[in-house]
Amino acid sequence: MSRRSVLTGTLAGLMAPTAVLALGADTAAAVSTKPAPAPTTPPVSTQGTTRHITMYAEELPGGQYGYGLAPGEATIPGPMLEMWEGDTLQIELVNNTDRRLSIHPHGVDYKTTSDGSPFNDSFNEPGETRTYTWSSHVQHRADDTRWIPGSAGYWHYHDHALGGDHGTEGLRKGLYGGLIVRRKGDILPDRQYTVVFNDMTINNKMAPDTPMLEANLGEKVEILAIGHGDQLHTFHLHAHRWADNRTGYLMGPDDPSQVVDNVDLNPGSSFGFQVIAGEAVGPGAWMYHCHVQFHSDGGMAGIFLVRNADGSMPDGAQEAIDRFQHHEHTGHTAGSH
Amino acid sequence: MSRRSVLTGTLAGLMAPTAVLALGADTAAAVSTKPAPAPTTPPVSTQGTTRHITMYAEELPGGQYGYGLAPGEATIPGPMLEMWEGDTLQIELVNNTDRRLSIHPHGVDYKTTSDGSPFNDSFNEPGETRTYTWSSHVQHRADDTRWIPGSAGYWHYHDHALGGDHGTEGLRKGLYGGLIVRRKGDILPDRQYTVVFNDMTINNKMAPDTPMLEANLGEKVEILAIGHGDQLHTFHLHAHRWADNRTGYLMGPDDPSQVVDNVDLNPGSSFGFQVIAGEAVGPGAWMYHCHVQFHSDGGMAGIFLVRNADGSMPDGAQEAIDRFQHHEHTGHTAGSH
Amino acid sequence: MSRRSVLTGTLAGLMAPTAVLALGADTAAAVSTKPAPAPTTPPVSTQGTTRHITMYAEELPGGQYGYGLAPGEATIPGPMLEMWEGDTLQIELVNNTDRRLSIHPHGVDYKTTSDGSPFNDSFNEPGETRTYTWSSHVQHRADDTRWIPGSAGYWHYHDHALGGDHGTEGLRKGLYGGLIVRRKGDILPDRQYTVVFNDMTINNKMAPDTPMLEANLGEKVEILAIGHGDQLHTFHLHAHRWADNRTGYLMGPDDPSQVVDNVDLNPGSSFGFQVIAGEAVGPGAWMYHCHVQFHSDGGMAGIFLVRNADGSMPDGAQEAIDRFQHHEHTGHTAGSH
Repeated sequence: MSRRSVLTGTLAGLMAPTAVLALGADTAAAVSTKPAPAPTTPPVSTQGTTRHITMYAEELPGGQYGYGLAPGEATIPGPMLEMWEGDTLQIELVNNTDRRLSIHPHGVDYKTTSDGSPFNDSFNEPGETRTYTWSSHVQHRADDTRWIPGSAGYWHYHDHALGGDHGTEGLRKGLYGGLIVRRKGDILPDRQYTVVFNDMTINNKMAPDTPMLEANLGEKVEILAIGHGDQLHTFHLHAHRWADNRTGYLMGPDDPSQVVDNVDLNPGSSFGFQVIAGEAVGPGAWMYHCHVQFHSDGGMAGIFLVRNADGSMPDGAQEAIDRFQHHEHTGHTAGSH
Repeated sequence: MSRRSVLTGTLAGLMAPTAVLALGADTAAAVSTKPAPAPTTPPVSTQGTTRHITMYAEELPGGQYGYGLAPGEATIPGPMLEMWEGDTLQIELVNNTDRRLSIHPHGVDYKTTSDGSPFNDSFNEPGETRTYTWSSHVQHRADDTRWIPGSAGYWHYHDHALGGDHGTEGLRKGLYGGLIVRRKGDILPDRQYTVVFNDMTINNKMAPDTPMLEANLGEKVEILAIGHGDQLHTFHLHAHRWADNRTGYLMGPDDPSQVVDNVDLNPGSSFGFQVIAGEAVGPGAWMYHCHVQFHSDGGMAGIFLVRNADGSMPDGAQEAIDRFQHHEHTGHTAGSH
Repeated sequence: MSRRSVLTGTLAGLMAPTAVLALGADTAAAVSTKPAPAPTTPPVSTQGTTRHITMYAEELPGGQYGYGLAPGEATIPGPMLEMWEGDTLQIELVNNTDRRLSIHPHGVDYKTTSDGSPFNDSFNEPGETRTYTWSSHVQHRADDTRWIPGSAGYWHYHDHALGGDHGTEGLRKGLYGGLIVRRKGDILPDRQYTVVFNDMTINNKMAPDTPMLEANLGEKVEILAIGHGDQLHTFHLHAHRWADNRTGYLMGPDDPSQVVDNVDLNPGSSFGFQVIAGEAVGPGAWMYHCHVQFHSDGGMAGIFLVRNADGSMPDGAQEAIDRFQHHEHTGHTAGSH
């Protein structure tokens, strides 16, 4: 199954699809022996470009649903979509299911006709194709001292129509994905992952089938975290931390932001950040998990595998992975040993 | 029913009561044909003023309770109270009920006698009148590099004595309201709304009776969001976003704040922001709702109606409102269509 | 029972152990007549120092567990650990229990061997001694405009192995504590408290046995708040507020941070701040509590006692304390009065 990232802008092609992956689903299926190389030519900001893509909503095995960039390629989460601040993205959504559904974005600009809500009569009937247009803007002055925020952010998109007026069934069954709007000058990652805490699952999976996030020591790894469903969640990553602001980097030595490694990830919210894989801690298999204890015990946990800089496996990592796949999730029953 | 906003300071009268409304309750009752005009003369900061008001706590139909600025005018939420940083507000609270109750503020300064808690013997017996004094302060230096924060913020007030030592029954039944402390130089809004996520309600109402927030295209709309009760909530507004900082505006182009359209709104917390109604998205009927799915499906949703700049209804808005009032809240039962 | 704070660095001894206390447990047992004096010589930053300490995990009465700095001195929470950004702390953990357990930190740097997780084969068998090494780093440039965050923060540590792979039983039974990493130039407090919202308890206690935080008027009081367990919590402190950033102080007059007095405190998260005891509000007995109503009614409340500047009791404070100890926690049953 191929996975693609969508970047708007005429120069987006400079970023090879294998460089910034949208590893929506099945990333835990196997430990690949070689992570993809880093891009050598970073894309240039192309604010103001309009790009058209086609997305396909499809039913998946087990009664789930997903979005994809080609027929038969739907994944959970759907493909990562990216824009530069100022860009417009036209999404022609093909509904290849027998259910009413839609696509609703967070963070970007859209007319009521692209709201993705039944409330605004904005959805796809079964078999219907409909175009949703998302635009974005740069920050601008409100007065002498204040600015209106630009669209840059770690956002997301999701169904708002399947099974009800808020898309509750669509969300539960997998109709969601990541959306990043970048600002000119933002640091681009070497790798990229979307992690969705959706009810008691991560990307609709539970351990040990949750996504394995992989990188080589020293690579810039971008994680977009999204919350959905009905429950309280907190996202925790071992041995890595970031600033609780727009990018996860500090804007300067006096940036007042709190540095965090555990952040609330509740329904409809999202945040993103980049970490330098293994910086100051070395390679290895690191856990990420919901820190609500009965959630982590119940299977809301996964692995961030930081390989050696040459892509080889660090000492002990395979043993940790094996342990995770065979001995984990015993919190409720295990006592002493 | 009249609704008034209370601004401290001798020049507060420059802001007409019809300009900055405290639309506490019943705002969804009808779609008024003409939103109130914007103020033409912004108030001037009057730091250091002391103002005295009288508030009345009353029982409302259906066993609810409210605060009001005159007898018979209690609303849920109570009137919006505003101060400039440095001002003092003396509140003479008249308890016209047969229950013990109080008023307890967040954010501002008060002595133990104005704490509003039974713990500090600070409450009104049935029929009793008692004065609570709230003051505020500007930021000041702590040392060469750090500052003690000023009082400016999007705060709130609530009962802390009805039915228990934490006012749990008073809160459930409507004894709460908004409190804004502004800093000199803050941008003043054209319109203002208070949205309280209180257990499974918004301002103690459920859809379709939740408040309709109204504005004309291009107006600065201020929303003060408050959480109460026992449950997890996230506040989501369609097609508009703001900075997750003190004001919702950026302090400058390098302000590191995350831009958001979905924020946790849990018990006792509050935040506020201003948006330019319909900016970059156009007029229309936009939803705001709790993004916890069973909450939105259960009725925690409302409408932000952005009219055309001349106050007329935009295309499709009335249809959306009709849909909201007749077809909404089917999330749990509706399957396909 | 002695309580000690651990500061790394050769000059840490300048801060007397009685000055910055790690009041982990039993602080509500009695109202001491004299708070400890403030330190007269602030410690100097000693970035780069390595310090070795020994900690002991022990079983406590009632089936609870704790960490301590000497045999027989385990407390809930465990001792406050402090580092300067750039320091390394080597912790020799002696497991004096018959259960598997570990120590896992948030915020700092560690190899997989110090992860404290069974996943990484990093824990103590019953009776086993094992050394965990935590290091930290200063912020540094990522590129021309962005910085990688330093380790400074209000962090925490906890078991990750007792009763399951996520330490759920260990956490429930008391194996947690505070960890502060300071940056050169940070303001040092006069007093320091750790408040852990752990399921329905504060520091594994319920009112009226929750910790009493004590200070004299005008002292800088540091509170490190930590969340654990399965539930939603919000931490509210009466009559005091702070900036929602790294330190609680503003970095300057244009720091955009929201000022708060009620903050989400969910599992695995932590934040800290300093307040000037009684500033602008005067001395007295002030409440802190979870603002989730059934939690505060159920006993998640405590007292922040601000004495007069000379250490004497302010008017009304003893009465409030007496009221708290005898009449509180009636929220669910009390109706009228």
